[in-house]
Order: sequence, then structure tokens, then C-alpha cells
Amino acid sequence: MYVDGTGPGGLKHITPAVREALAASEVIVGYQTYLDLIPELLQGKEVLTSQMMKEVERGRQCLELAASGKRVALVSGGDPGIYAMAGLVFELARERNDTIQIEVIPGIAALNACAARLGAPLMHDFAAISLSDLLTPWPLIEKRLMAAAMADFVIVLYNPKSKKRTAHIERARELILAQRAADTPVGVVTAATRENERITLTTLGQMLEAEITMQSCVIIGNSMTFAWRNFMVTPRGYNGKYDIRGDR
Amino acid sequence: MYVDGTGPGGLKHITPAVREALAASEVIVGYQTYLDLIPELLQGKEVLTSQMMKEVERGRQCLELAASGKRVALVSGGDPGIYAMAGLVFELARERNDTIQIEVIPGIAALNACAARLGAPLMHDFAAISLSDLLTPWPLIEKRLMAAAMADFVIVLYNPKSKKRTAHIERARELILAQRAADTPVGVVTAATRENERITLTTLGQMLEAEITMQSCVIIGNSMTFAWRNFMVTPRGYNGKYDIRGDR
Repeated sequence: MYVDGTGPGGLKHITPAVREALAASEVIVGYQTYLDLIPELLQGKEVLTSQMMKEVERGRQCLELAASGKRVALVSGGDPGIYAMAGLVFELARERNDTIQIEVIPGIAALNACAARLGAPLMHDFAAISLSDLLTPWPLIEKRLMAAAMADFVIVLYNPKSKKRTAHIERARELILAQRAADTPVGVVTAATRENERITLTTLGQMLEAEITMQSCVIIGNSMTFAWRNFMVTPRGYNGKYDIRGDR
Repeated sequence: MYVDGTGPGGLKHITPAVREALAASEVIVGYQTYLDLIPELLQGKEVLTSQMMKEVERGRQCLELAASGKRVALVSGGDPGIYAMAGLVFELARERNDTIQIEVIPGIAALNACAARLGAPLMHDFAAISLSDLLTPWPLIEKRLMAAAMADFVIVLYNPKSKKRTAHIERARELILAQRAADTPVGVVTAATRENERITLTTLGQMLEAEITMQSCVIIGNSMTFAWRNFMVTPRGYNGKYDIRGDR
């Protein structure tokens, strides 16, 4: 069984390794939204999908198919290993005491794609934090936001906002603003590399005015990050020493 | 000018977007080690490389070539936006007040590739920290290690060790061990996806016995991370609630 990362959306960001794994599979399982982006890779395959099927059901179904001897590919948007499907597959496989072969094929994650579209905001130490409290207690999320802000990490916010959950991003901003300047550059990228991509370069002070959705990734700079032209850039260091040789 | 990420090493992990950018370029500039991995993509191109040329020189050379009207691709291993060349290019371009078009094409970073080879260690909030103190004061690196350990982030260590710098990884382990159990799973991946790839699954207590080099990426689990078969897996949450629907 393969767990394949199809990247941020555009076909041009799907690696040959992922294409090969899909080609080698008999059954392809995935969330409709992701499969809709890769129609040409599904030709001649048994495709199992549902907009409604839950993630756990999808994972179990893949493991059952694989256990029955089928070559199965579970498709995940972005990188399956970053806030996506890979972990769930292993959790379910362990529950079942599975012995099937499982291989994760990495993809371009939202954080890679969004950073590239903004310029180079992740050039120094960064923390990725999901604002979803469905599976994580909110106090722990707050603790992480404060720790990351305090230690001057660039901060990447996943799942910043949904229809039901609009206050978390406000609280996150408030916690970070307590330790970082209001003019700190912030980038908001929605649907990176897709047709409906939107990129906003703003500041910590102004960021709530940007359109932020479930599909958005929000990147908050560290104390050294600067905006230049329409780019957001975090320098590689703090000392102004740029005479680097091989050894980093 | 393009800044292209050629991924962790294997040709199968280079995206079509990167291949197109290389094909569209007249001059390709890069560190010899990375260019050696992609000989077929360099055919018919003017290739500028040197094992000795410093990163700053390489960046300036690219900007000068681009300013002179050439289409230039600067090749970076992994993802150019994560501890690689993209930031430097923008820093230098700002110094020069450049108006040339600069586009970063994301690649599979070491953290994506190493996580995939280990299973799914990055399924929850994580912090990426470089142990190189060439451009960053060591006290700040220690502060980040402590903040990340305290807030239960999965921790990805870049540049964990070099010939000259062997004590930093020991100190990092010590700081994390003060707040995390000795049996916390740790994965060490060296030269991910390349012929000489080495994967070690160990623990925080034992990790210094693993072979760790400049080419290694070290991933330290959070309090929930488990080892199963030869995989390292961080569960998606803390509550054991796995009945997720669309809204995360």
C-alpha cells in the first residue's frame, strides 16, 4: 500500500515517484476534492471516493483492500506526512496488527508551496501549528503559540479558520502580538498553485483584514523577516555574517 | 530567474515544475554535489558550478546573469525555501535594488523526505531547528530547543553535526531529555532517497549511538509518538477522538 502526496494542487507539483506509485496501483482511494485535481492519473483504475466518507473509514478500507492482496494507493493532498493521511494509516494498521507493506511517498506540502509563493519566509527555524482543536486541547495549542512566539520562530499556521471556528486565529494573533512587533510581515496563501490561488502580504497588525479560510496557510515572520517588493523574506541568520563556506 | 528545488536526491522526487523551469533556462548554476544528481537535466545548458564557490558568490552571479538578460536557474537541493538558497537570493537582490523577476519553485525538503522514510513522525505540530551557530547565536538556538521541548513539539534538527561541530547535538539532546522521556522515539535519516540512504529508528536515550552526519536529519518525537514495526508515528491528536468529518 502506498500513501501518496499529490502536492498543493497543480499537476506540475506531483513528483514522478507519486505518479509511478499511482500507476502501479490497482485501486486508488481518496477524497473527491483531491482526486478531481488529477483525473489523468486515475484512468483505468478502480477509484473509491466519497465526499462524505470519513477519513477513518477511508484508511480502514485501504488497509482491508491491501490485506486482501490488492495494490492500493491512498491519495492525500499536499504531503501525506504533514497534517494529512499518513499518520492515521499507521495508527489504524497498528490497531489491526497489520503486516502489509506500507510506503509513504512525500509530496510538496502546503508549507513548502505557500512559502515559495511568498518568497522565502521559512529560511530560518520555524514552527508549524494547527489551530484545529478537534483532536488537540486548545490550552496546548495556546502553549505552543506562546512558546513559538517567545523563541522567535517563524510560525506557520495550518487550519487557521473554518466556518465554525473563527476566534482561534484572533486569539493566536493576540498571543503572538504580545511578543512580536505589529509590523512583522505576515503572508496568507490560499489554494497555493491552484487556479483560485490568492496571495496576501500583510502584517501582524493588519492580518485579520485578509481573507483567511480553511484552505489558507498563514505564515508569520520572525523578528528579522522583511517585506521587499511583493516578497516576504526571512534572512538566514542574525549576525550579518554571510561568508559561508561548505560547513554549515 | 528561477530558484529550483531538486528535492532530496533521487530524480523521482523532482517535480515537473522544476524540470520545466530548468528546461526554460539558458544558464544553470549550482553546487556541484546537487548538479551531479541531475546530469540529464543539464544537457545543452551553460552550467556554472564550483565546489569551492561560496553561496554568496553563487547568488550574486545568478543575479548578475539575470540582470544581463539571461534566463537563469539557481539549483538548490531539497526545497530552496527551507534552510537553502532562496532567502539569500532575495537578500542579495534587495541589496542591489534588483527589479528582475524571481520565482521560487518548491521542492521536497529534507524534512518531507525523511519523515516519509520514517513513517509519519510529523503528523502533529512540529518545530524545525538548525543546530548550526555560524549565523545564529547559540543561546538563541538553546532557547528554541527548550521552548520546543517544553511545548511538546515534534522536533526536526537540521545540520545536527559536522566534523568541527560535534557537541551541539549532545547539548540539544540534553535539553530535550530534561523535558521528554528517554524512550521517546527518534529517527535519524541520512541521504534520504539516495543510494547511500541510511535510516535509524532509535530513542532519545540512545540516539547519540546512531551515525549522525552533516547530511542527516534528526526527528525527535513528541510525548505521543510511538515506534511500530520499523516505523515512527506521531498520532494526529491527544484525545483519542478519531471521528473526524470535513471540518478540521
